[in-house]
Amino acid sequence: VTAYEIIRSKREGEELPASAIEFIVRGFVEGSVPDYQMSAFLMAVYFRGMTEAETAALTRVMLDSGIALDLSDIDGVKVDKHSTGGVGDKLSLIVAPAAAAAGVRVPMISGRGLGHTGGTLDKLESIPGMSTSFSPRAFRDLVARVGMAIIGQSPELAPADRRMYALRDVTATVECAPLIVGSILSKKFAAGLDALILDIKVGRGAFMTDLTAARDLGRRLVTTAAQLGLRASGLLTDMESPLGRAVGNALEVAEAVEVLKGGGPPDVREVSLALAGRMLSIGGVAGSAAEGIEAARAVLDRGAALEVFERFVSAQGGDAHICDDPGILPRASLVREVVAKRAGSVAGVDALEIGLATVELGAGRTVVGEEIDPAVGIEIEAPVGAEVAAGEPLALVHANDEGRLAAVLDRVRDAFTLTDRPVAAPRRMLEEIGAPAGDVSPD
Amino acid sequence: VTAYEIIRSKREGEELPASAIEFIVRGFVEGSVPDYQMSAFLMAVYFRGMTEAETAALTRVMLDSGIALDLSDIDGVKVDKHSTGGVGDKLSLIVAPAAAAAGVRVPMISGRGLGHTGGTLDKLESIPGMSTSFSPRAFRDLVARVGMAIIGQSPELAPADRRMYALRDVTATVECAPLIVGSILSKKFAAGLDALILDIKVGRGAFMTDLTAARDLGRRLVTTAAQLGLRASGLLTDMESPLGRAVGNALEVAEAVEVLKGGGPPDVREVSLALAGRMLSIGGVAGSAAEGIEAARAVLDRGAALEVFERFVSAQGGDAHICDDPGILPRASLVREVVAKRAGSVAGVDALEIGLATVELGAGRTVVGEEIDPAVGIEIEAPVGAEVAAGEPLALVHANDEGRLAAVLDRVRDAFTLTDRPVAAPRRMLEEIGAPAGDVSPD
Repeated sequence: VTAYEIIRSKREGEELPASAIEFIVRGFVEGSVPDYQMSAFLMAVYFRGMTEAETAALTRVMLDSGIALDLSDIDGVKVDKHSTGGVGDKLSLIVAPAAAAAGVRVPMISGRGLGHTGGTLDKLESIPGMSTSFSPRAFRDLVARVGMAIIGQSPELAPADRRMYALRDVTATVECAPLIVGSILSKKFAAGLDALILDIKVGRGAFMTDLTAARDLGRRLVTTAAQLGLRASGLLTDMESPLGRAVGNALEVAEAVEVLKGGGPPDVREVSLALAGRMLSIGGVAGSAAEGIEAARAVLDRGAALEVFERFVSAQGGDAHICDDPGILPRASLVREVVAKRAGSVAGVDALEIGLATVELGAGRTVVGEEIDPAVGIEIEAPVGAEVAAGEPLALVHANDEGRLAAVLDRVRDAFTLTDRPVAAPRRMLEEIGAPAGDVSPD
Repeated sequence: VTAYEIIRSKREGEELPASAIEFIVRGFVEGSVPDYQMSAFLMAVYFRGMTEAETAALTRVMLDSGIALDLSDIDGVKVDKHSTGGVGDKLSLIVAPAAAAAGVRVPMISGRGLGHTGGTLDKLESIPGMSTSFSPRAFRDLVARVGMAIIGQSPELAPADRRMYALRDVTATVECAPLIVGSILSKKFAAGLDALILDIKVGRGAFMTDLTAARDLGRRLVTTAAQLGLRASGLLTDMESPLGRAVGNALEVAEAVEVLKGGGPPDVREVSLALAGRMLSIGGVAGSAAEGIEAARAVLDRGAALEVFERFVSAQGGDAHICDDPGILPRASLVREVVAKRAGSVAGVDALEIGLATVELGAGRTVVGEEIDPAVGIEIEAPVGAEVAAGEPLALVHANDEGRLAAVLDRVRDAFTLTDRPVAAPRRMLEEIGAPAGDVSPD
């Protein structure tokens, strides 16, 4: 078999045997399959897709391209949560310590923001002193000692994904479900997990704007994980409007701490409990999602999740005093109100526009490797469902540069849609993925 | 605009502006667009196609990547014939001297065989002493002096095509109509033509096995040529069974000489007249295709085409005595009959199988650059429509190696389908391309 034949076969829509997928991915990583053949193959996959068996084979060979952590000597079930990314998504900072406080171990390997969606590593690094760069061994020790850790991807884990992603990024082959599944799951397997909860975001501020496509991706993730021996399930959650109120790295850390203290925006709390609860049930420390949600609520309300968070921050070099004094976090020098021009109910806050405005302020990246400003961002003062009078604030813009501030004000205002009729708060939890249907609301 | 955006836009099925096509092709030739982006782009084009305007822009930028010959100081209209390739297709060796003898100039840039289809250059080079490698200047002089020349592609002409074709060849993006159009026409324009007649082969032994796809390719070629100022029309011709009787380089040269002497297989003569006649009418030296066919028949019958052929062979260094004494051509040491196992009418001779058997004998290449044996090949003794008794010959296999000979005998026999009912000889001329509908038969 040759790379040419594999490309041609996929181009013709044929199902590839696992050996063919191994041949082309391994050859690409080792250098015997040139990048121009890999990119043609990836584009053919974009158009023809992959079956479940092909996707599992892809994930397996990507995983096998590097080492996999062995966390089996750490007591407890290792469970992670993975989000496909959104605007204002600080859930990992809440869900990981809550689940760890309630009895599972959370070895989380996370990413950086690119484009309008933020990244957990960037958020954590707004905490003074915090590091997210650890060796696989140090990561293992953090999980054993603290019960959780959140670090960046290490070069030893699933190197095929790093090389393939770099090629996909410049050949317009990122937006392809089986390739996304291989990319996500190969890294998750490499982290030594027992189970995984997925948060598939859907809407204007998400990678997937279409419910059908998001549902397909979620099912593929759950199915492929199961085929390779990883328990997985998840939720489709709404990302039409930013999650919670804070968008921007330090602002989101402060909001996560509020939720860990039992407060914070109701939607952030609700989705956090839903995800943490499922981590507990899939990890076997709760008998059902509902019991898991109760357990998660208990660790939030009695401060146990906050305690784990403080230990986690300290263990990774950060200043845990931010929990008592959020003023330690980086603060922007300029804070400007964006006010409503008319009275009304907020019918929509465009998550994509808010995300892009945040990037313009310097909180995110347009290209990989760009410096970011941890302090800047946007606070939503009038979320969906709120009623405002003319002249009342819709949002607060935090900036460190007058020019950038001025440049985003109209964009932020235009992200809000006002209506004369009352509007209900958005339903964040849309569907279960891969678990029996039922009530998905924790409260 | 970036290469990424162009790939993405094509992936989404959008029509690209000419500037985008220029950007990516020129960037690829100059090295600023890496081959992995070009191959992803080509695969996206494979799936999404190109509009007429896009195809014209592609052809134009490929042409502009190199020099174009200027033959305007040579008297007469410069007309070429291009075939998409088949099995037993020796038509260029007949059509070019016939058209030149009847009053147009024929500057033909041709190719080599790859896979089951033969190449005109390989056939010519079976003539002792014959060269097909000339500089653009020497080519121009040959056309001026002899009225025709047939040479290989020079590196100065349409270099984008050579680089793109090399990439398409290893990324399974060869079989794509707009890319084929750009490849063919950019070279034809670079050769300084005024008009072009196309012979689009369709059937088992052709590149296109499907009439609809062949028709689409023919129309695209004619339309794109017209958009760029080149008159073009052509024929769809049948390639289910080998054309004529001879398949193999020296064998085909001998058969071409027979036709130039007024004899030869009727189907070869018929298609030759049809194509040469159209070269004369599109070149303006005949008032219609029918008049052109009459003129072509006249130059064949009075020996004028053969005279041009002899001058052409001599001018390119070959031994023109092959016309009087075909025994000078390379001859295989082994000639074996393949006989019918039963009596019947020949209902089919599978051109693909005959072509592949010829490659097995050494007459063709499986990879670019392979050495070929000019002497070997297959002579069809019982073409479609012939009646045979059991034990009578179906074909003669010419080989220089007992092992290779033995290996193809069954394949050659199995290429013949016999039936009990009478069978008509195949209709070779199927449809006009780009000219008013009408009778396409010259005889």
